[in-house]
Amino acid sequence: MPRDPRHDILFEPVQIGPKRARNRLWQASHCMGGGAERPGFQAEHRAVKAEGGWAVVGTEYTAIAPESEDMPRIAGRLWDQGDVRNYRLMTERAHENGALASVQLWYGGPFACGGESRMLGVRKAASHARAYLGVPVAGRAMSKEEIREVQQYYVRAARLARDAGFDIVCLLCSTAIDITHQFLLPALNNRTDEYGGGLENRARFALETYEQVREAVGDDMAITVRLGVDTLDHPYGMGDLGIRVDGDGGGFMELADDLIDMWDLVIGPLEWGEQAGPSRTHPTNWARDIMMEARGHTKKLLANVGRLTDPGTMVEMIESGQCDVIAAARPTISDPYLPQKIDEGRLDDIRECIGCNMCISKFEVGALPIVCTQNATIGEEYRRGWHPEKFTTAANADKDVLVIGAGPAGMECARILGERGMNHVHLVEADAEIGGHVKDISALPRLGEWGRVINYRQIQLDKLKNVELITGERLTKEQVLEYGAEIVIVATGSYWSTTGVHDVENQPIPGADAESQDHVLTPDQVFAGKDPGKRVVVFDTDGYFLAATLAERFAKEDREVTFVTPLAETAPYTEKTLEQPRLVRLLRRLGVTIHNYTTLGRVDAGAATLVDVWDDSERVVECDGVVLVTQRVPHESLFQELRADPAALEREGIEAVYRVGDCAVPSTIADAVFEGHRLAREIDSPNPEYPLPYIRERRLLDASEDDFKLDSPTIAISMPQVRA
Amino acid sequence: MPRDPRHDILFEPVQIGPKRARNRLWQASHCMGGGAERPGFQAEHRAVKAEGGWAVVGTEYTAIAPESEDMPRIAGRLWDQGDVRNYRLMTERAHENGALASVQLWYGGPFACGGESRMLGVRKAASHARAYLGVPVAGRAMSKEEIREVQQYYVRAARLARDAGFDIVCLLCSTAIDITHQFLLPALNNRTDEYGGGLENRARFALETYEQVREAVGDDMAITVRLGVDTLDHPYGMGDLGIRVDGDGGGFMELADDLIDMWDLVIGPLEWGEQAGPSRTHPTNWARDIMMEARGHTKKLLANVGRLTDPGTMVEMIESGQCDVIAAARPTISDPYLPQKIDEGRLDDIRECIGCNMCISKFEVGALPIVCTQNATIGEEYRRGWHPEKFTTAANADKDVLVIGAGPAGMECARILGERGMNHVHLVEADAEIGGHVKDISALPRLGEWGRVINYRQIQLDKLKNVELITGERLTKEQVLEYGAEIVIVATGSYWSTTGVHDVENQPIPGADAESQDHVLTPDQVFAGKDPGKRVVVFDTDGYFLAATLAERFAKEDREVTFVTPLAETAPYTEKTLEQPRLVRLLRRLGVTIHNYTTLGRVDAGAATLVDVWDDSERVVECDGVVLVTQRVPHESLFQELRADPAALEREGIEAVYRVGDCAVPSTIADAVFEGHRLAREIDSPNPEYPLPYIRERRLLDASEDDFKLDSPTIAISMPQVRA
Repeated sequence: MPRDPRHDILFEPVQIGPKRARNRLWQASHCMGGGAERPGFQAEHRAVKAEGGWAVVGTEYTAIAPESEDMPRIAGRLWDQGDVRNYRLMTERAHENGALASVQLWYGGPFACGGESRMLGVRKAASHARAYLGVPVAGRAMSKEEIREVQQYYVRAARLARDAGFDIVCLLCSTAIDITHQFLLPALNNRTDEYGGGLENRARFALETYEQVREAVGDDMAITVRLGVDTLDHPYGMGDLGIRVDGDGGGFMELADDLIDMWDLVIGPLEWGEQAGPSRTHPTNWARDIMMEARGHTKKLLANVGRLTDPGTMVEMIESGQCDVIAAARPTISDPYLPQKIDEGRLDDIRECIGCNMCISKFEVGALPIVCTQNATIGEEYRRGWHPEKFTTAANADKDVLVIGAGPAGMECARILGERGMNHVHLVEADAEIGGHVKDISALPRLGEWGRVINYRQIQLDKLKNVELITGERLTKEQVLEYGAEIVIVATGSYWSTTGVHDVENQPIPGADAESQDHVLTPDQVFAGKDPGKRVVVFDTDGYFLAATLAERFAKEDREVTFVTPLAETAPYTEKTLEQPRLVRLLRRLGVTIHNYTTLGRVDAGAATLVDVWDDSERVVECDGVVLVTQRVPHESLFQELRADPAALEREGIEAVYRVGDCAVPSTIADAVFEGHRLAREIDSPNPEYPLPYIRERRLLDASEDDFKLDSPTIAISMPQVRA
Repeated sequence: MPRDPRHDILFEPVQIGPKRARNRLWQASHCMGGGAERPGFQAEHRAVKAEGGWAVVGTEYTAIAPESEDMPRIAGRLWDQGDVRNYRLMTERAHENGALASVQLWYGGPFACGGESRMLGVRKAASHARAYLGVPVAGRAMSKEEIREVQQYYVRAARLARDAGFDIVCLLCSTAIDITHQFLLPALNNRTDEYGGGLENRARFALETYEQVREAVGDDMAITVRLGVDTLDHPYGMGDLGIRVDGDGGGFMELADDLIDMWDLVIGPLEWGEQAGPSRTHPTNWARDIMMEARGHTKKLLANVGRLTDPGTMVEMIESGQCDVIAAARPTISDPYLPQKIDEGRLDDIRECIGCNMCISKFEVGALPIVCTQNATIGEEYRRGWHPEKFTTAANADKDVLVIGAGPAGMECARILGERGMNHVHLVEADAEIGGHVKDISALPRLGEWGRVINYRQIQLDKLKNVELITGERLTKEQVLEYGAEIVIVATGSYWSTTGVHDVENQPIPGADAESQDHVLTPDQVFAGKDPGKRVVVFDTDGYFLAATLAERFAKEDREVTFVTPLAETAPYTEKTLEQPRLVRLLRRLGVTIHNYTTLGRVDAGAATLVDVWDDSERVVECDGVVLVTQRVPHESLFQELRADPAALEREGIEAVYRVGDCAVPSTIADAVFEGHRLAREIDSPNPEYPLPYIRERRLLDASEDDFKLDSPTIAISMPQVRA
């Protein structure tokens, strides 16, 4: 299909300083776990996006000095000639695919974790800072000599970036994590010299830095600033201790406007969930008003983010003057080919970000490669050789495959099997609709966008001529045997423990049996309509979003909700997805009583006994219903029955039976999608049940580049893969 | 000095299977952040210990299959020929130094984090397990075919280990983190086949594994088992869901006794603070009674751990029959040369572990290299080329150095300057005794062993003929200028904020001023004797040990203590040091009221206003005193005065003024010791103020081994180091 002419504006070239970008759709800098140490990962991850049409692809935040080292988090690094050599592969691959390459320079000051380098003693800050807040925060006030020194780090890193082939240097100045922002924020700058006090003084460090970088590389490279232009108000922002767009934020833009080529604007408080807002709180383009205000403070190009996946919104943003460039991080992760799909008028092929922030959580946990709920290939471009849009015909494409269960794992598996040209793929779902438990989740308050996991796959499955979708059919073992498929994939999901089995010790909760008792419920039963009554206790050992979101739903239904968890934090994994601050505050505002460090000792009709985890003291809470969000149990009986009868399988010509997703090991939606995808990618490997080896980018003694190839004997892992 | 004959027994050789160890002092497997990916780090870290006299040096826990991958934690890996190649360097370096090399094999089952490999779907467990407890816990019950498969992983890894040159294969079976232990523990094994139920069934998986490993490599390698023989009782242990030494623990030893060459016994519940007990709760050889009971269940060699640093205790353990081999992890970290020092009768040179578990905390945070409060060289053997006992004469050894302040940084700096042969080193301390704030800390309840930081250095400083220690002298700028030293190092430490400056925003607490108010105190004032009164509020934003330990002290003094922290956890960093469970339970038992997620809104005479961090609701607590444990401020005025007067420095012949430790950036004792050490190691570098580059063991494209040398241009970081 041709491009919708209304979208033409998105594909206008953009001249930025000495460089020309082919269109207005740019990948904003974002973390992915590659850094400077995994050059293949970094290069191919960005190359796929360049191939998909993004006009600019960029690194994550990149430390300009060893004292700004950030382990256990993975940042980029531009310190030495080794880094230059490693990054050159990325810039070459970007250029080969028609994109400009951008690097984001960063000096963390007191916010650099420094777990590898141990260079605490030379970590420089605007003002002395020392606080423990989960990560170390420490640095010492810089002397003026040191100010010059740090500014020279920027210059040096910009030159190294040029040597590495980068086209654009993006200077980070946001979320209080870069020294230039720290100087700007009164919270972190109480200097009394010409670098502290009024805006002009607090801006001085950044302005001088921009000027020096410009002098050094401005003829060869474009210079952009990722500015946290507004740090919001309490409780999510910094109030008077930060900057606001209609005050010092906009004022800073005016001061620096002549020194740079483009503003890449974001919301900038330390809570970076305001910048990378999850879908449950932050609709697309949520910062519109702030950005429109910012527009008035610059004559330069302006880029905006806002989890933008819809070309109509993008066009509106440009036509309204809100911005000139659409910057995207998560949308590029969810769909690296988003620009090409717009360009080709294939809007229904766009795999939209659901805003769950699972990608971010891996960065927050530390040292982990990126994942995506929607896009199983992210982070696997290099090490597993997976491409989001390209598929090879399977060596066993003549086979018919039956996939049982159309939850995340089954849908994705059938989709990729279809793409790989299997003869027939039948995806059979017991329910009337596909989607599995994502149907229920996306019906919860504020989680509607998570339904995109289903929508995207529904559309793709419909397009694949070799895939047939059958709903409302719950297959028995006998039906599977007689189905006629040569390969059977069981993806039957899981259910929540009915007795509250939980914790490492896997013990049930005394007195609790959701199967026989009206006053005990599982999330599955809640979704099916079982009523928890007026006074509800929600018990959470799962620790992710579900228990807290059920509590939210119940509270909004005017029930009295008591939330009980043995964990220190409320919904701790939502801290990693940046959802926690707004989620917990909402629960409190809705009147939910939260007991942390508390377990559920027993359940009786009308009462729950809570037990303090430290001293075993008990307290009884009267309630009508107890909802157990503890542990999921695989629906594995069909798989086990099939596997237990090899004679029948052979008789019926079934060559293999596999299982994927929650019916093997219940986990996140992202994991289920990944596993469904993985099996289909490797359906023609020697032993599809077991993943093929991946390239580990590590130091190898006496290595040659051949050691890092997927077919190298160095990385061959001869276990179950080779056994079969 | 000759060896004390009473210690001769420690140096008897030990025949273990087909191998002979030169003595009874073995390094037990322990984590250090090298894994299989940093071969230089792994090899040199172990080589230094081999050089120091340990008869066996061993890797950390080492994953035998990709699905047992443990990122963000750093485990070893024996998967492929690349790993074999990398480990060969370690075994060669161990052998060159007279030690045997051991590898600890591990299959984590549901406890393998898997953040890199994403092989959740093939992660096998004894029984289904799924719980969220900070780290993912998930795996699926194995089929019998899969049991054979996992056992073959062990066999295959043992063979790879043999290929890599290892002498001993240690099979991990402890703390519920290895599959063999998981099968043993009723908590994690509810199978109904011949692998579940009674002890013989639950032991079957391990026994079969041991037998297969023995068949495969038993003629060539010794086989040991690290057994968690007792998993203790509630609340620190597993009670009936675990094993006890006088029950199934001892019973298992009897069943397996013929299959292995040595038992390496530890305390085995999931709370691994019971195995790696911190000094505040676990005295040396704390598991003696359990080990004596275990002795009766085996005819094989027995190794014990117990944070053993005293040769007298070690001898007593062997002579009493408690064990045959002294295994040590933390003591080898604190002093890699412990055996040689015993052997040479240099007991006063032993740098004893203080049991703070800072080493462990870096593993727990994830992906970080090891550190040690006592031994600044740990983890730096390869990448910075530091040796714990060997020092080169400084190129500028003709200089006199004045070190001001004998806290951890100053003591260590003066010690290393002495070792490096500086002409004169004067260490001048204002107090009557050396030690800085460690004096106060080690006087707190149960922290006495932390005083070893001072004791060791006091002894070493006394031995160094070129170092003079002067106490009771508080030097002014003028006195420093006239002192006659050519190099001045300021190590004047820090003090606790008197206004409760805290948090990222560095704001003081309204109403609080410890300088002018009797009812507001800092820890420094408490140490100096200021009385907090009967009812005390301790406010903690520091998050490590101090606030909680002050609360403990106050409670033991019969004060009424309220502990207030905006953090979710109580003393969260003590979770990483494994101190938290016993610390928090003790506080509760002592009657301390703990308010998490709560900040201190203001202080008035007689009252503290607490504020809920989620909804800003306030509550007033009546109290006599408020102790502010928020943020430390450097004592930097002397340094700044000196630096501000370059003319005077030049006039007096002072070539350089540096600062180290808390007077630059307040941090842990470990960081202060490290920085003092670092400056002295590099006192003759082009710019001693700035650390020299270190070798980053990473993948480098088109690398040669020359790229990984300290003098390689590839790693040269030409910033302030070269500027000077």
